[in-house]
Amino acid sequence: MTRIEDIAKKLEVSKSTVSKALNGAPDVSETLRKTVLETAVELGYSRSTRKRGAKQLCIFIKNMAYDSPSDFGHDIIIGFRKMAEPAGFIVAIEELDDHLQKHNQYDEYMLQRNYVGALFLGLSLSDEWLHQLRTSQTPAVLLDNYVKANPNVAYIGVDNSEGMNLTVSYLKGLGHRKIGYLSGALGSYINQIRYSAFFHALRKYGLSDDPALGGNAYLFSECLQKHLPRLLKQGVTAIVCSHDLLAHTVMIYCQELGLRVPEDISIVGFDDLPLCSYTIPPMTTVQQNRTEIGRSAFYALSSLMAGTPISTLLLHAQLMKRQSTAVVPEIPPVKKLMVSHNAFSISDEKI
Amino acid sequence: MTRIEDIAKKLEVSKSTVSKALNGAPDVSETLRKTVLETAVELGYSRSTRKRGAKQLCIFIKNMAYDSPSDFGHDIIIGFRKMAEPAGFIVAIEELDDHLQKHNQYDEYMLQRNYVGALFLGLSLSDEWLHQLRTSQTPAVLLDNYVKANPNVAYIGVDNSEGMNLTVSYLKGLGHRKIGYLSGALGSYINQIRYSAFFHALRKYGLSDDPALGGNAYLFSECLQKHLPRLLKQGVTAIVCSHDLLAHTVMIYCQELGLRVPEDISIVGFDDLPLCSYTIPPMTTVQQNRTEIGRSAFYALSSLMAGTPISTLLLHAQLMKRQSTAVVPEIPPVKKLMVSHNAFSISDEKI
Repeated sequence: MTRIEDIAKKLEVSKSTVSKALNGAPDVSETLRKTVLETAVELGYSRSTRKRGAKQLCIFIKNMAYDSPSDFGHDIIIGFRKMAEPAGFIVAIEELDDHLQKHNQYDEYMLQRNYVGALFLGLSLSDEWLHQLRTSQTPAVLLDNYVKANPNVAYIGVDNSEGMNLTVSYLKGLGHRKIGYLSGALGSYINQIRYSAFFHALRKYGLSDDPALGGNAYLFSECLQKHLPRLLKQGVTAIVCSHDLLAHTVMIYCQELGLRVPEDISIVGFDDLPLCSYTIPPMTTVQQNRTEIGRSAFYALSSLMAGTPISTLLLHAQLMKRQSTAVVPEIPPVKKLMVSHNAFSISDEKI
Repeated sequence: MTRIEDIAKKLEVSKSTVSKALNGAPDVSETLRKTVLETAVELGYSRSTRKRGAKQLCIFIKNMAYDSPSDFGHDIIIGFRKMAEPAGFIVAIEELDDHLQKHNQYDEYMLQRNYVGALFLGLSLSDEWLHQLRTSQTPAVLLDNYVKANPNVAYIGVDNSEGMNLTVSYLKGLGHRKIGYLSGALGSYINQIRYSAFFHALRKYGLSDDPALGGNAYLFSECLQKHLPRLLKQGVTAIVCSHDLLAHTVMIYCQELGLRVPEDISIVGFDDLPLCSYTIPPMTTVQQNRTEIGRSAFYALSSLMAGTPISTLLLHAQLMKRQSTAVVPEIPPVKKLMVSHNAFSISDEKI
């Protein structure tokens, strides 16, 4: 285990200089501080070897709201803190912007800020730190992101495969045979995983898995105006979405087109955000128990800190059956729209 | 939460009768005891609601040796007990035969024996209790077996996908382009998972994923006499096996045929049993850290008992590079065997 002495020896400076540099003392130059941090990371020095005082963890958050109980991140943070604080940890929360990632190396930043471990919420595949996490030394748990073969990094999330299997088998039980899928952009790991889990579920339950039944886009408007009419024209009677907000938008758009939910078309979300109980009609969705995700994230992180190399920790998904799904309609929605000569045929022509 | 009173009321007997029946008192008839147990399970009564005394967990073990440190199950049990006993649990170990499964319903058996949770090692897909675990109420953690959508059951194991990716990418780096796979019978979940993970890895690294590059059989002899010659004839220069004992047998058989390991053919196992350091040559294999699996299994079980619905907990796999793998040979092993007119051509004719 690397000690402060080892860093001092390698750099031929005193122990107190190293200590001051690591703790950001003002009388150490920025250049020296940077050199000390780089050397500390290179030698594998870790804050967790220090015994004094409370240890600090950091929740880095990006692309995710967490302020109010209706926000996705809120309960995850609560669950995490409920475990971490009684165990003697201080939990900081930092919003992670691109500038911070660009100008700081992850391991160095953690050392410098005195963080012994991190939970990342909302990273996308293009984030600079996600690349650094392939070889990082400071324990980190990633919600919905998987990093291969680094024993210091674990992936936590809901069992998406189970969620899609439950959804497709439920819709099949209601008589649906042609089910479409709308997704956010595939630049995120979780969108990729859910996309492939959905088509895997179609195959598993013997339904058509024609790739044309899926559509993805960064913008909701593209999903609505480009992909949704395309799916309807193929005769889908139900649409599953990669997340609740998209499903809610699809629901409203279908209603504006003149389709009744669930009588003419069934719609399913993913996540079970609080809003799902209040949409009209209330939305069938796959629940992620966010408090339990937060609690388990702390377990995974403390395991990594204790040297147990957890790779993946998934929680059971649960299908919340509400009123946005019903038995398959006798007339597919596309036929209903053609008969009523409504907005659909217009937006359809644009494509 | 169901109490003894509820069972007594439903059956119209006294609380003390229910209590005696649950605890196997000799003055309660076998028929009544059975009825009480069935009703207790039906009502969702759980031992974990009882507060008195130490709580008991059971490790059920089947098809797996565990007596000596060189056995696969040994360290898993040690890891589990090291966590469970300080937490105040008594850990029983029971060998699980078909007779026991046939004559006892899982939840009833757990209640009757006063077990509040179970760890299963070595179940196969045909085990009766594996079917019951789809809807069981008593928390259970399964090594290498996955049960969908029961919040009381979790799957724990190593990250097989990661293990196969590490293996294939390492062999590709050594110049191998045609890699074969030999596996135990696909009647086990773990063999299925590794099989598909191997072929997935071939695709991921741009190598041929011809299904003919794989072979599986319950008997080692069938792998050796039927599949191995078939793989060699296709020009494979490396063979990955679903587990170490099979890999060791393949290694010896290749040597008997006149092939040098690793100069003529590379061989990789899976599990990193202690024997891998002592084979000649020492075997490259994917490590499962069994002590950590045991420790994590206890965590998963205690989470389930606390109501956190863990579905899957995987540990990072690590590739242990030893001497059974080397750069791709200039002459594929099959050509070498043809030139030397040895046993291979004979056993080949049998196919």
